[in-house]
Amino acid sequence: MDNTFDIKQIRKDFPILQTTAYGKPLIYLDSGATTQKPVQVIKAMERYYKEQNANIHRGAHYLSIMATEAHETARERVAGFIGASNSSSIIFTRNATEGINLIAYAWAMDHLKAGDEIILTIAEHHSNILPWQYVAQKTGAILKYIYLTENERLDIDQYRKMINSKVKLVTIQHMSNVLGIINPVEEIISLAHEKGARVLVDGAQSVPHMPVDVSKLDCDFLVFSAHKMCGPMGIGVLYIKENMLDQVNPFLFGGEMIAEVEEQSATFAPAPLKFEAGTPNVGGTIGLVSAIDYLQSIGMDKILEHERQLTSFAIKKMSSLDFIKIHGPLNMENRGGVISFSVKGVHPHDVATILDQDGIAVRSGHHCAQPLMKYLDVPATSRASFYIYNTMEEVEIFIDRLKNIRKWFKYGS
Amino acid sequence: MDNTFDIKQIRKDFPILQTTAYGKPLIYLDSGATTQKPVQVIKAMERYYKEQNANIHRGAHYLSIMATEAHETARERVAGFIGASNSSSIIFTRNATEGINLIAYAWAMDHLKAGDEIILTIAEHHSNILPWQYVAQKTGAILKYIYLTENERLDIDQYRKMINSKVKLVTIQHMSNVLGIINPVEEIISLAHEKGARVLVDGAQSVPHMPVDVSKLDCDFLVFSAHKMCGPMGIGVLYIKENMLDQVNPFLFGGEMIAEVEEQSATFAPAPLKFEAGTPNVGGTIGLVSAIDYLQSIGMDKILEHERQLTSFAIKKMSSLDFIKIHGPLNMENRGGVISFSVKGVHPHDVATILDQDGIAVRSGHHCAQPLMKYLDVPATSRASFYIYNTMEEVEIFIDRLKNIRKWFKYGS
Repeated sequence: MDNTFDIKQIRKDFPILQTTAYGKPLIYLDSGATTQKPVQVIKAMERYYKEQNANIHRGAHYLSIMATEAHETARERVAGFIGASNSSSIIFTRNATEGINLIAYAWAMDHLKAGDEIILTIAEHHSNILPWQYVAQKTGAILKYIYLTENERLDIDQYRKMINSKVKLVTIQHMSNVLGIINPVEEIISLAHEKGARVLVDGAQSVPHMPVDVSKLDCDFLVFSAHKMCGPMGIGVLYIKENMLDQVNPFLFGGEMIAEVEEQSATFAPAPLKFEAGTPNVGGTIGLVSAIDYLQSIGMDKILEHERQLTSFAIKKMSSLDFIKIHGPLNMENRGGVISFSVKGVHPHDVATILDQDGIAVRSGHHCAQPLMKYLDVPATSRASFYIYNTMEEVEIFIDRLKNIRKWFKYGS
Repeated sequence: MDNTFDIKQIRKDFPILQTTAYGKPLIYLDSGATTQKPVQVIKAMERYYKEQNANIHRGAHYLSIMATEAHETARERVAGFIGASNSSSIIFTRNATEGINLIAYAWAMDHLKAGDEIILTIAEHHSNILPWQYVAQKTGAILKYIYLTENERLDIDQYRKMINSKVKLVTIQHMSNVLGIINPVEEIISLAHEKGARVLVDGAQSVPHMPVDVSKLDCDFLVFSAHKMCGPMGIGVLYIKENMLDQVNPFLFGGEMIAEVEEQSATFAPAPLKFEAGTPNVGGTIGLVSAIDYLQSIGMDKILEHERQLTSFAIKKMSSLDFIKIHGPLNMENRGGVISFSVKGVHPHDVATILDQDGIAVRSGHHCAQPLMKYLDVPATSRASFYIYNTMEEVEIFIDRLKNIRKWFKYGS
């Protein structure tokens, strides 16, 4: 591994990694659900609440001026992090889910009509399915799914046949939280734009793990959550391409997002404020920027490479075990650090519970992707997901324990 | 003042109160916008991120189980704090604004029709006006305002004449963030219910400052924000009365809030989960509960009494100055710790800016209440708002500096 990727120092930065579960050192393999937080992020928020806390924008006092500057600097920093040319394109939301709902309610509901088509993938997270089911119900638009190839990657050939001028929106995850596949969003976006469709990219699983540049992707919308990238819970980002800002209406209504309010009507502030009603989560945006600082100090390229090494090693080891089935491709091309798997003869929940007794945190269930589970014909899977702080040694222990589970169930049953 | 209200200890609990603004000790009189945070709350969130952080509900591992328990215990604690009999009535939102929008989108939009009436007050915060303007535009419902009496209290006689069976919703602030008036919501609710109307109470300015019991009020909906009651930003509460839970539809769609998802349709979890899409702000709910612990350790009655003493003293002093006009009633009956005022001959923004140079934080502007500003026929006001950590000495310094402003402008112009 690259010498400049100092895994020992990184691990020291995460207080929770020094704790134990049931007296065993914690091996945290659930970063796809939420990542742990480095002390830098925790301290940045602490400092905010101890030294700077105030409500923003409308205050003419010392603290409020500081807090406003911190919040708007955060917006600039987020824009830079994802390659957005204009910080007005950065809308702070609660989480990725809210960003998708905002586009569903405040753009799709007004721009789609009966017979229009929305393309999504069978591997989407519920948060990128349910808002579109709602839009479809209300507008008469039609949801069409891209399915998978035999090796459990997105069927791009099928997409090429589906895309046509009736398609108004393609909404697609950048990386699957179940299969680990990184979708060819650049090509998908380019094809969609040729037909006049808009594209929303769910970056919840990509932005934390690899360089993502919206200018290069040319997506119309991108969402992600701070808590999946070393930041705090309760803060997320919706990117709206500059030329779309006026086409998306206000969604939540309240303070901060107005120009002029009369008793019976109101006019709204320009973006980004028109999308941010009420007191924003300033402590959250400060935590998010601190997380971006932290990730950038390591380098997004190096983070991707570290996870590739862990994943490649784990897949190699796991696929040599005949009682393990991995869901998702085995080769590492365009594949992130998520491994969903089944242990033959053992229910996924039991897998998680038994690993938990050894201090190993994995997730089991439908991973908020029930349509994919049905498509894969499994009730649930177990999932190990990696991040910057995981080590080869942890992967080895995890696989060693998997072998034990199998033995235990084999001889126990 | 009651001996058990230990103001010295309280002030020590707030690190930001030990800081200075421009070298002057900070006198923070902007708690109506957001309150400062005691070290107990800051530490509770720090502890969460250092020891317990995980995504909740679907995890079968140690941290996830702990985080889930903390989050659901928070829900129980919030229910207890406001007298809700069932914790399913407690919905975690980002802030009070989101709670009002949820009811607008997911209840009003489906239950109101053309000609139905919504009653609100001219003193509402924009967050309790704009969502209803949107509902009115979409449904054809009509917005009707309750105005003020001569002494700048709500005109309850006017309300008595307005309430009729066409009224489907009365939506009203418990306490005004501008006038400081505490509205007789119990009577308002009772009259509304007689006519079959539902009532939403905006508790953003009441829940932090006085005992509020939803069972006693019998409101259908109540909203408030953690950050205005010693808690963190990015977390708020929507209370929905138990018998209304099934009448409010899901609002944001995503993970955690579903029962079963098919490609073209889905069914939803019961309340409260059906209203909480995506990863919740667990760090935020833990901060909120720590804030509730803190406030309850002092006692909501004592907090109200402390603020009454400060406000009564300030109003007495300020009303003896002929160059000060106070907006809102001068007598302390049903009046909270917010004083809006104008200094003759000085623009409100200048008032705030000059006070700021002395380390005194007040807010100036329309306070997200433009219809009220127009009704009062002022472009803006300055506002001092008090909380548990403010002292009589601070009020004296504030008033002393007000006198200086007047002198400075008198002789300077």
